Amino acid sequence: MAAVAAVRPFEGEDRHVALAGRLRAVRAATLALLEGLTPEDCMMQSMAEASPVKWHVGHVSWFFETFLLETGEPGFRPFHPRFRELFNSYYVGVGARQPRGWRGLLSRPALQEVLDYQHAVQQRLLALLGRGGLPAQALDLIELGINHEQQHQELIVTDLKHHFWHNPLRPAWRGSPAAPAENAAPAGFVAFDGGLCEIGHAGPSFAFDNERPRHRVWIAPFELAARPVSNAEFLAFIDDGGYRRPELWLSDGWDERCRQGWEAPLYWWRDDGPWHSYTVAGDAPLDPAAPVCHVSHYEADAYARWAGARLPTEAEWEVAAAATAPGPADDFAEGGGFHPRRPGAGRLAGLWGGVWEWTQSAYLPYPGFEVAPGAVGEYNGKFMINQMVLRGGSCATPRSHIRASYRNFFGPAARWQFSGLRLARK
Amino acid sequence: MAAVAAVRPFEGEDRHVALAGRLRAVRAATLALLEGLTPEDCMMQSMAEASPVKWHVGHVSWFFETFLLETGEPGFRPFHPRFRELFNSYYVGVGARQPRGWRGLLSRPALQEVLDYQHAVQQRLLALLGRGGLPAQALDLIELGINHEQQHQELIVTDLKHHFWHNPLRPAWRGSPAAPAENAAPAGFVAFDGGLCEIGHAGPSFAFDNERPRHRVWIAPFELAARPVSNAEFLAFIDDGGYRRPELWLSDGWDERCRQGWEAPLYWWRDDGPWHSYTVAGDAPLDPAAPVCHVSHYEADAYARWAGARLPTEAEWEVAAAATAPGPADDFAEGGGFHPRRPGAGRLAGLWGGVWEWTQSAYLPYPGFEVAPGAVGEYNGKFMINQMVLRGGSCATPRSHIRASYRNFFGPAARWQFSGLRLARK
Amino acid sequence: MAAVAAVRPFEGEDRHVALAGRLRAVRAATLALLEGLTPEDCMMQSMAEASPVKWHVGHVSWFFETFLLETGEPGFRPFHPRFRELFNSYYVGVGARQPRGWRGLLSRPALQEVLDYQHAVQQRLLALLGRGGLPAQALDLIELGINHEQQHQELIVTDLKHHFWHNPLRPAWRGSPAAPAENAAPAGFVAFDGGLCEIGHAGPSFAFDNERPRHRVWIAPFELAARPVSNAEFLAFIDDGGYRRPELWLSDGWDERCRQGWEAPLYWWRDDGPWHSYTVAGDAPLDPAAPVCHVSHYEADAYARWAGARLPTEAEWEVAAAATAPGPADDFAEGGGFHPRRPGAGRLAGLWGGVWEWTQSAYLPYPGFEVAPGAVGEYNGKFMINQMVLRGGSCATPRSHIRASYRNFFGPAARWQFSGLRLARK
Amino acid sequence: MAAVAAVRPFEGEDRHVALAGRLRAVRAATLALLEGLTPEDCMMQSMAEASPVKWHVGHVSWFFETFLLETGEPGFRPFHPRFRELFNSYYVGVGARQPRGWRGLLSRPALQEVLDYQHAVQQRLLALLGRGGLPAQALDLIELGINHEQQHQELIVTDLKHHFWHNPLRPAWRGSPAAPAENAAPAGFVAFDGGLCEIGHAGPSFAFDNERPRHRVWIAPFELAARPVSNAEFLAFIDDGGYRRPELWLSDGWDERCRQGWEAPLYWWRDDGPWHSYTVAGDAPLDPAAPVCHVSHYEADAYARWAGARLPTEAEWEVAAAATAPGPADDFAEGGGFHPRRPGAGRLAGLWGGVWEWTQSAYLPYPGFEVAPGAVGEYNGKFMINQMVLRGGSCATPRSHIRASYRNFFGPAARWQFSGLRLARK
Repeated sequence: MAAVAAVRPFEGEDRHVALAGRLRAVRAATLALLEGLTPEDCMMQSMAEASPVKWHVGHVSWFFETFLLETGEPGFRPFHPRFRELFNSYYVGVGARQPRGWRGLLSRPALQEVLDYQHAVQQRLLALLGRGGLPAQALDLIELGINHEQQHQELIVTDLKHHFWHNPLRPAWRGSPAAPAENAAPAGFVAFDGGLCEIGHAGPSFAFDNERPRHRVWIAPFELAARPVSNAEFLAFIDDGGYRRPELWLSDGWDERCRQGWEAPLYWWRDDGPWHSYTVAGDAPLDPAAPVCHVSHYEADAYARWAGARLPTEAEWEVAAAATAPGPADDFAEGGGFHPRRPGAGRLAGLWGGVWEWTQSAYLPYPGFEVAPGAVGEYNGKFMINQMVLRGGSCATPRSHIRASYRNFFGPAARWQFSGLRLARK
Repeated sequence: MAAVAAVRPFEGEDRHVALAGRLRAVRAATLALLEGLTPEDCMMQSMAEASPVKWHVGHVSWFFETFLLETGEPGFRPFHPRFRELFNSYYVGVGARQPRGWRGLLSRPALQEVLDYQHAVQQRLLALLGRGGLPAQALDLIELGINHEQQHQELIVTDLKHHFWHNPLRPAWRGSPAAPAENAAPAGFVAFDGGLCEIGHAGPSFAFDNERPRHRVWIAPFELAARPVSNAEFLAFIDDGGYRRPELWLSDGWDERCRQGWEAPLYWWRDDGPWHSYTVAGDAPLDPAAPVCHVSHYEADAYARWAGARLPTEAEWEVAAAATAPGPADDFAEGGGFHPRRPGAGRLAGLWGGVWEWTQSAYLPYPGFEVAPGAVGEYNGKFMINQMVLRGGSCATPRSHIRASYRNFFGPAARWQFSGLRLARK
Repeated sequence: MAAVAAVRPFEGEDRHVALAGRLRAVRAATLALLEGLTPEDCMMQSMAEASPVKWHVGHVSWFFETFLLETGEPGFRPFHPRFRELFNSYYVGVGARQPRGWRGLLSRPALQEVLDYQHAVQQRLLALLGRGGLPAQALDLIELGINHEQQHQELIVTDLKHHFWHNPLRPAWRGSPAAPAENAAPAGFVAFDGGLCEIGHAGPSFAFDNERPRHRVWIAPFELAARPVSNAEFLAFIDDGGYRRPELWLSDGWDERCRQGWEAPLYWWRDDGPWHSYTVAGDAPLDPAAPVCHVSHYEADAYARWAGARLPTEAEWEVAAAATAPGPADDFAEGGGFHPRRPGAGRLAGLWGGVWEWTQSAYLPYPGFEVAPGAVGEYNGKFMINQMVLRGGSCATPRSHIRASYRNFFGPAARWQFSGLRLARK
Repeated sequence: MAAVAAVRPFEGEDRHVALAGRLRAVRAATLALLEGLTPEDCMMQSMAEASPVKWHVGHVSWFFETFLLETGEPGFRPFHPRFRELFNSYYVGVGARQPRGWRGLLSRPALQEVLDYQHAVQQRLLALLGRGGLPAQALDLIELGINHEQQHQELIVTDLKHHFWHNPLRPAWRGSPAAPAENAAPAGFVAFDGGLCEIGHAGPSFAFDNERPRHRVWIAPFELAARPVSNAEFLAFIDDGGYRRPELWLSDGWDERCRQGWEAPLYWWRDDGPWHSYTVAGDAPLDPAAPVCHVSHYEADAYARWAGARLPTEAEWEVAAAATAPGPADDFAEGGGFHPRRPGAGRLAGLWGGVWEWTQSAYLPYPGFEVAPGAVGEYNGKFMINQMVLRGGSCATPRSHIRASYRNFFGPAARWQFSGLRLARK
């Protein structure tokens, strides 16, 4: 976010330069994710919701080509006439799309050709920026594209983990996670006064449309747990029959548990001995003091009920987070571990990074929410139904991508994100 | 609501008497719904979500038998040892249940036996009340059971309409709807200041747990349409390609539209000529000035987007409704038409009765919401996910059942309730 | 079959008289099935494949009205203009049809109205016959209609048993089955020479089109078990892990077993003690010496493999049966037990009636098979795929309906018919 | 078949030598199929029924490793301890298996590692053969493995075509098909006497267990079309409303057509102009004189009914084919075109190769059929249900693989094989 903030103050040519720098940095981060992966690894698609790495790489360039080059580059010609269709995700306004569940069938173009595409689009975009004089609207779109690419960086990690999980060899594709901190953060609750507060984003720095406008909310006094729920605590829930007691669950949640046969968080397994979980470094024993991860909203909600607490609202979370900011010690993608570490010290340990924290808030428009005109307006608004808000970023989120007003969202049954929970109570 | 209010002021024995009177009145209203129906009519089940009439009749007595007689009647013996299982809806804490989609397979007990059950439970309950001295908690449960029965009265109407719809004979089972009012209410918007408001129910009079506690919310200034959207207005949406333009729809809504092949509200049909709709009095031409009905949240939301407006939040709706109350001229179940009429005059015409109005609010717990202990606590809380709030009652709601804080809720794809919409804008 | 045979020899007016007699007898048998059933019982539909009793009753009259009265009655007017659609089963050539899975939603017409329909069609048909002079083609259609009604008599029993099974009260709707014979038929095999044989029906007496033409087949020497597999024998298969050993099953059969969770034949259940089964007389202990019943082709095939034998082909079965005929001691619908009894003595005990016997033959057209022109030609031919042949009739088949060449057919997963098996070996 | 026939006559050491030669030749043919494919191409899986190329390559080596090396190689150690699970197709007796629909998620092992596996198994198998002295049973298994690999060669082609079809780029991965023959074979029928015939395989040369034993069948006189149905003829069926007339279809076939929305054979498409089809050389105009291909049994059956004919039985086909043999001019995999050519001249043109010809025979065991003991016995027998027989081989079948008694089989809805039809009539 520091980087983003640095961009805005200097309008005019300086913003062109700053954006070019960010473009290069984001691109480098995307490419770094591909290290150690083969073209075959980048083909896998384990479910319609999780795309192949290659498709993600093509799609983030498609965004720049379609929304920037196509409208802003003199004498624009597409890199490939069919890529507009191949790499469109869900923008109905842009035209036909490869069906979501068929993305894993794109052996052609080869990964190398997609990397060439990415490089070419990058160069043409940098050339455009280099010439200067772009209208503010185009610069805003570039900034949106940079943030869009960061979102797909996180999805590359979570989707890939899901794909690899279906291989009984349980491949390791990143180094071992960092050794856990010696001391885990203590439990307990922090009290907040609430009152007439403001949440949402204001001002010129970048934020997604769904974070705007900043608006007033009334919040009753509340308490927020000093750290996320840990694996050890979640194990106590399991051992207490948490997955066998319908009275702890939302009705839809219980149905889902039965349908899917859930007995533990995603990626957990055990033979006769203790629980393990699959990580980007392969199978590993569970660290009791690390945050529980890969739980659905349903499981988070059931846990909270079992614990005599509840999930926070997104407004409570944001108000509590407003006084802090993601820092270099937090557990973000730049660390490269891609597995939530024990949270460090601090009043609200693990608030930033580590695991996304489920809230009890449905993902809905803020009062006065407005959608951007044109296809780019499909970015967020049309998904504002049947989803719940998560806050705070995860170990797979770039540090510069997150902020207090950031709203992530997934359906209540989703488990393949790095999703955990922090308790709240009145 | 008047009736409910009348009960509470006189605590002690007087409340026993008042509740006995209400029990008799509610029972009479349930039985009146069965007029003109055969035992075969009361067997039908067209989908898992819509129960047979006979099952509804058994279930409302099951509620009283299970939660009142079983715990409060000296020497209690069940009317039939298996009814506890047959007529349990979703109370996991009570034990086994006939699967929801199999309720239409209960040819035995016969309708007459279920009516005998209802009568016996009623008599025993009245005897219990007649003896007096029941603890407040038991009286509260009776009041809950009365309101519970009223909810099922509405479901009897909406479910039955859905069942009959699958019969190509399109049976008429109630008299023709009342002749429409000569003049429809005018369009336009009414402005509200918002500010720091209170919503939810407080005080001793009856309300469901989901309406409590009363709490403060901040509301920005807003406008609410002077009447619900009419059939004529909704036809303009259809004629403008509303069902063919994905950009007007939420993403999940568009998927549902495609999956179901929706081209118009439920129960609408036409051959070569103008649109008709199936009503409880059989097929009838569409009244352009009546409120559009049997639309899902998805359709309501798409219409609002098309109209350059939005759905209200439940807080906005409640604040607007707080100054008014359901009155004798409003279109409720007591009128017996079971089809929404043209709204009459008034500042917010048709706010009460007629059609339930979809809001843009997800059905979630209010701050400080608490669930009752025991199986009866499964009443509302466990459904607080994946559903949207509707407000104001319909032509099938008993007048005494509704109030400003009342929260109805259905999934965003549901269409078989009498559900319409009223626009809001900032 | 005796009755049918009696019809043909006296052509001309005598055939009119004979058919009128059979019509009356078949109608009486249909009505006898309704004894003890309420209109509600006749509404149930537990799956798309099993129709409500009321629908069966309407459909058999629809057959006569559509194929006889509509074409043959001077000045024909339909009993009800919509019954043509309501009671059409699968005759595409006749026009629209109530969807198969929605037959349980026809509360209107009431059962009484359907019985009136049946009576009226019967009277008009008898009047037509009384006038005499009908062409042979019309008389053939009446004979087809009589046999068609007998088929639906059996389906009334099997479908109703399936519907009632979903009611936890396990209703009994017929008297207790006859006391079992003291001595069960002995096991063992009967040897047959095979050679160049003829199967299929020839001559003027009635048979369905799928039994024609009579044709030559070469059959190798084979042996057929002296009686059907018994419950005791099937229990040994279960106790030997028959439902847990995929190597005993066809691949599709094993998949189906897993999908459905089969652990025993349909309608079998037990708590802690011995196995019981649901019968038309309610729950009853299993008779070890009675034929096993309500097994799918998959289970029959797995049992045979476990027993070191195989199912017979339909040609083997027919050749073995050709020398015998259904007799008064056999276990047919006229006995009213509707539950397979212990087979009596005889060289091939229980060959007729009791349980249908699965063969290893797919239901395919005989060489030279020809379909009747017009909609009535949809009777059999279009189902000749994905089904297996069963032979010999069951305890729910009318005795006069069965013959050696009779081919019944169901998909290999079907279990709700009275289906068992008899072993064969080379 | 010539090659196979060449193996058997010289028993003892000579058979070792001959098998080693065939092993090398078959391996070379498998590797030749990979030319022009990238590792990404070899990853695709478009449906559970169609496996990735890489999986096929691993599986054919798995067969040799599991059934030959594991039991016959002194001091056997598996190439990789988990490949036994990864590359098991459906042999329950061998243990756990990667779920069929997840084969496309095996990015690891890489294609190169699978090729290394293939090479290592080949070398070890050749060493085993080189040492000589293998029991006849082991030599039989090697011969089975060779034929097994040839079956997977054909599946590599048909599955890959299906995978690529989901890529809107419509990749071409083989050269253009050969120019069509100038003159198409003439239509007409050839008459056969039938009588007491023999079908099935006898003698020492290789055949699958499902082709045995040779046995007698009685066949009535019949006629077989002089060539397969052509694209032009099938177009006439389409133009005559063939896909809109339920009376032409089997009931299950019509349901499938409606469910899938079939309007033409698989891989056919058109915009405004004439029909095209997707081929291994990319999109191409339809050759009217080439055999129609990629039709299901349902479509073949409907076409035959429309044409006033029928499909042949497998016995008729085999008797007609017995006097001929696949020759060098026939359209087989060795030609490399992988697209059916116009049939050449001859009395029964196109009988061998080109397209598999659907028969009206269900895939069932021959009289006296016996399954091999052990897991290898799962090869054929357990699939003998719900499938129909195809005969004659296709343009993707190796010439040495086919013979008159060869029985291919697929479900009646399958279309992705090179399947066509030849008419028969009585």
